Amino acid sequence: MARINENYRKLQAGYLFPEIGRRVTAFTSAHPDAKVIRLGIGDVTLPLSPAIVEALRDAAVAFGTDGGFHGYGPENGYDFLLDAIREHDYASRGVDIERQEIFVSDGSKQDSGNIQEIFGLDCSIAVTDPVYPVYVDTNVMAGRTGAADERGRYAGITYLSATAENGFMPGPPEGRVDIAYLCSPNNPTGAVAGRETLEAWVGWARENDAVLIFDAAYDAFIQDPTLPHSIYEIEGARECAIEMRSFSKRAGFTGVRCAYTVVPRALTGSTASGERVSINDLWARRHATKFNSVPYIIQKGAAAVFTPEGRKQTGEQVAYYMANAAALREGLGNAGFTLYGGEHAPYIWMETPEGLSSWDCFDRLLGDAHVVCTPGSGFGAAGEGYVRISAFNSRANVDEAITRIRRTFGG
Amino acid sequence: MARINENYRKLQAGYLFPEIGRRVTAFTSAHPDAKVIRLGIGDVTLPLSPAIVEALRDAAVAFGTDGGFHGYGPENGYDFLLDAIREHDYASRGVDIERQEIFVSDGSKQDSGNIQEIFGLDCSIAVTDPVYPVYVDTNVMAGRTGAADERGRYAGITYLSATAENGFMPGPPEGRVDIAYLCSPNNPTGAVAGRETLEAWVGWARENDAVLIFDAAYDAFIQDPTLPHSIYEIEGARECAIEMRSFSKRAGFTGVRCAYTVVPRALTGSTASGERVSINDLWARRHATKFNSVPYIIQKGAAAVFTPEGRKQTGEQVAYYMANAAALREGLGNAGFTLYGGEHAPYIWMETPEGLSSWDCFDRLLGDAHVVCTPGSGFGAAGEGYVRISAFNSRANVDEAITRIRRTFGG
Repeated sequence: MARINENYRKLQAGYLFPEIGRRVTAFTSAHPDAKVIRLGIGDVTLPLSPAIVEALRDAAVAFGTDGGFHGYGPENGYDFLLDAIREHDYASRGVDIERQEIFVSDGSKQDSGNIQEIFGLDCSIAVTDPVYPVYVDTNVMAGRTGAADERGRYAGITYLSATAENGFMPGPPEGRVDIAYLCSPNNPTGAVAGRETLEAWVGWARENDAVLIFDAAYDAFIQDPTLPHSIYEIEGARECAIEMRSFSKRAGFTGVRCAYTVVPRALTGSTASGERVSINDLWARRHATKFNSVPYIIQKGAAAVFTPEGRKQTGEQVAYYMANAAALREGLGNAGFTLYGGEHAPYIWMETPEGLSSWDCFDRLLGDAHVVCTPGSGFGAAGEGYVRISAFNSRANVDEAITRIRRTFGG
Repeated sequence: MARINENYRKLQAGYLFPEIGRRVTAFTSAHPDAKVIRLGIGDVTLPLSPAIVEALRDAAVAFGTDGGFHGYGPENGYDFLLDAIREHDYASRGVDIERQEIFVSDGSKQDSGNIQEIFGLDCSIAVTDPVYPVYVDTNVMAGRTGAADERGRYAGITYLSATAENGFMPGPPEGRVDIAYLCSPNNPTGAVAGRETLEAWVGWARENDAVLIFDAAYDAFIQDPTLPHSIYEIEGARECAIEMRSFSKRAGFTGVRCAYTVVPRALTGSTASGERVSINDLWARRHATKFNSVPYIIQKGAAAVFTPEGRKQTGEQVAYYMANAAALREGLGNAGFTLYGGEHAPYIWMETPEGLSSWDCFDRLLGDAHVVCTPGSGFGAAGEGYVRISAFNSRANVDEAITRIRRTFGG
């Protein structure tokens, strides 16, 4: 008798974004003429930059030729992309990363969901709350948690509440935890961790022999050049941290799919008997066994992000979205809404008006303003009373959304 | 203290193909002038068909436009691809598959490695031997097995030996097993399961409330139109079988990456308390949480495989490789080598000459003939004494390889 993995039954309702999709579809079916503005899922809207399009197109055309065709690729990614990452994402900030430490993948969602597989099922987990749901759900599915309580918090996970008091960027846990997930710039709160915060996290991880999983999928949105982009800008992080980066938001790759994870060679975990084992070796084994490299064509597109034209064009796209974020901060802030984030991240974290719950605010914004946001409680219990508003849209839509949101709440 | 997943330490040596890669690299470094012919990993060699190249190119160019850009895609795949699969891979053979039963992915390797995650860790597993290593390794990594014995067989897995006596296509297990993996046309042996064999497997799965994971990645190579391509051509398979198909070999997508898995709605598994649970729901949840859809551009390329031009062009490529397989069968067979497979699959399963071990034969072919094959023992204990020879290469290389192999062994 084929038994199912019953851990799946502990999962709370559907994954957040499908649930949003269902509600939006229900609304648009009932109101086909409504001009819905989507500031929900955080999907990019600008077309791909010309430098990337050219690279994708040229690679596709080359695939029809004897000399330009490529079969199975190297498991970790092509050297042309690994070297571009090393130079532009790391060496440019004084960090030396080896080719063998980079694993090109089809998304940070996948990487942040899969990474837990190489750790023992007895490892304890800490996450911030609110949190990107994938970190939690994949640990639930693997069996590292008990059941969820009435707030949706799973037994066995340490939740670090992100609040206005701590700037929505909690420090490390006080008790013992084996693996902690930290996302900065943060999805969903839009907060960013400064050097001191990151130093505290790295110090904690080293003291406790813990592994820090640092999700930097939004690093390109950091506006202050003195803020760290990589956890490896912090002394000692190579011995305790795994880092994830993505092309999704920085270059419009949400439908193109490319990301990477850095696992330093210096990082080790422990066996039950206390033997130290290379985490890089374990991830390499998982990558070789359960993955089969990113399409060559897509890797060529990703490499084009690092060319002079690609950096200029994608930089302009990031600036466009960040101007939207500034407009949201100004337009809604001046109307009296209480807002956080949006300075070094494409997300505004808004306190719900009138004491509404997150989902009630979501429904109100959808029903009255025809604006899709993301309910903060969908990211965790501490997100209750907030909604996330994304800056990924056209400026015209953002301006229209501001007007409609203000009108909905009499602002 | 972050404990590692110690199940990884049970894995035997490296994954097969990286080990082959290491030996080939060592040889070519020592003999830079040797013209090595690669009939090892089973990677396609012909450029992509024009219809596919055009679709990829057009989709890439469209991504640079407001109307043609696509962000996050539907989790299971775009309807245009799902419907093409339904029509050409299923309806054309009298099988009705719903959109919601198809999950487009980036590879059958991934799907066949990931599928075990939705089943309980207490499920027992059966595989044929020799076997595609991913089925076994991913179950080892998940913790469903004990340690390996001196033949590399893991405790707790039921191995069904594929031998000359059973035509390298064993029937179902006799004892109780919860999940069985079956690959037809078979990698590595090149054998194909006929209708009666598949009926026996489906009957066994239904009787035992087991799940049959049917890997049909090579179905396009079946030459006899009366042989089933899909397990769903067998009565009752919807209640017991999951099927995987790939564009890798049928259309040259090994570096392009697209495949799909069918999970029928009628398929259920059991909880410990005996409640029946939809396997489709579980896989949908995993897909939504740990995957993020195949690039739109790539899905457009995959859909082009089903256009009239695409079917004609990819059909010609399959015919080209199968002509290679016929040449290998004839050229090596006439020289006295004992060969199997290669009639409905792009692989020849060759008994090693002179009683050599598989790896000794591999080393001899590499060192003397400068031909890369795959050692049969790398696919399992019962593969010892065989090597796999792939038909994926140019005809000139295949002819040259035949000459060299014959010369090496005095044939």
